Formats: sequence, structure tokens, C-alpha cells
Amino acid sequence: MAVVVGYVPTKEGRAALRRAAEECLLRRTRLIVINSNRGGKDLDADEATRFDEELRGVQAQLDDVGVEHEVRQLVRGNEPAEDLIAAAEEVEADFIVIGLRRRTPVGKLILGSNAQRILLDAPCPVLAVKAPTEG
Amino acid sequence: MAVVVGYVPTKEGRAALRRAAEECLLRRTRLIVINSNRGGKDLDADEATRFDEELRGVQAQLDDVGVEHEVRQLVRGNEPAEDLIAAAEEVEADFIVIGLRRRTPVGKLILGSNAQRILLDAPCPVLAVKAPTEG
Repeated sequence: MAVVVGYVPTKEGRAALRRAAEECLLRRTRLIVINSNRGGKDLDADEATRFDEELRGVQAQLDDVGVEHEVRQLVRGNEPAEDLIAAAEEVEADFIVIGLRRRTPVGKLILGSNAQRILLDAPCPVLAVKAPTEG
Repeated sequence: MAVVVGYVPTKEGRAALRRAAEECLLRRTRLIVINSNRGGKDLDADEATRFDEELRGVQAQLDDVGVEHEVRQLVRGNEPAEDLIAAAEEVEADFIVIGLRRRTPVGKLILGSNAQRILLDAPCPVLAVKAPTEG
């Protein structure tokens, strides 16, 4: 068994990674981090740096308690949904963790197509996590 | 802390309840089952009976291991999303579990508005569970 998490260098991605790591610690299952990159667009350098730090912190924590983990950088031109679903099938994931953007008070009621695809097509349950609200 | 699950007498609802109970056993948190009923339409008697049996089975299992649980039948005319979100806020839920319908091979890529609303507006993470495929 394993938990699969979609890695994106945004605050939602970091919230998803953090929660996925907590679930692995609770379950003593391994963590598979999937970074589906289609070539660097939308990449904010500050966010990427913060994410890398977060990732190293999470890896150190998992190392400390002996929870196995793996980071896969995929640059295949796939939609992130395809890579996540393929990984979940391969490792027979217990669940997938994804980050969702928080709706603004006037935001419209619609989920991104990638999130919808993962929710509808994943072979396992999907845990959708939002970033903490900024205080 | 608590896990909140939306109760509907369908195979998706039963899958969500089962998974929510497993998570409560793992975490030793209490389970709040919310049955938001707008008046009995769409109620399949066989499914309702099977669901009630499942619910009693889950309650007995939770009783056995001493996990606290609560079933709330709400007939307020609210959308189920509103009742679930209100309950999650009230008990400061660890997460909400919802059942999603599985997409058929030719099914369109769209989540129901209730599911989207819960995913976007819940104060906590949401675990989306699908019913097992019929074999």
C-alpha cells in the first residue's frame, strides 16, 4: 500500500504534500510524490524554492521514522491527472492526495478539469486538501 | 476531532460510510453520520434497507472497539452540501467523506454540483470515495 500525492510548487501543492506525509506516518505506508512537469511554465521561483525546502523537510521526517518514500519527476507531456492515475494504479495506492484552490467569496462554483478527472477516474479514493487560509 | 460522512442510501453512500468507519478506527476519532433528507424522493427501498443494515453493522463494529459515533437525520430542506459543511464546522472535522458516482466509459467529465460545492467550500479536507466496481 502507498499514498500518492501530486506535487506542484504552489501553496495548495505544499498543503497536499504535508497532509499526505501525515497520512503515511499514521498508516506506516510509503509515500510516492509525483511531479508532473510540462516544461516550466507557471513556475514561480520563490514557490519552487519553498516547495523544495518543504519536500526536504518532509523527506527528513519520513526518514527519521522509517517511512519509505519516493519522488518521481515526470516530464512526459501528459496531463498531471494521467500521471497520477497511472502511478496510483501501479502501486495500488490506498489513496491519492491532491491540492485544491480555495474559492474566493465571489468565485464561481467550478473545479478545474484536472481535479475533476482525478476525482472521477482514479482507481482509489482521493483526498482533496486546500491550503490554509492566510491570516 | 471527528470524521463526518454524508449518508445516502446508495452504493456510493455505503462505500463512503465503510471507508469513514475504517478511518475512525485507524484514528480513534468519532464518526458523525449526516443523513440529509429532502423528503424521500429518489429513495429506493431495497437500497435503504441494505444501507440500514450496513449502518447497524458499522455501529456495532465501532461499539466493539469503543469508537464514539452519532447519526444525525436532518430534514431541513437544505442541500446536503450545506448540512455536511455545517456539521464539519461544528465538530471541527478532521475530514469529510463523500461518495462519488463512477463515470461510465462514455460518461461525461463533470462532477455533481453538490460534490463540487463540498470539495470547494468544506472547512477541512474531503475524501472522495467511489463504490467498488461490480464484478
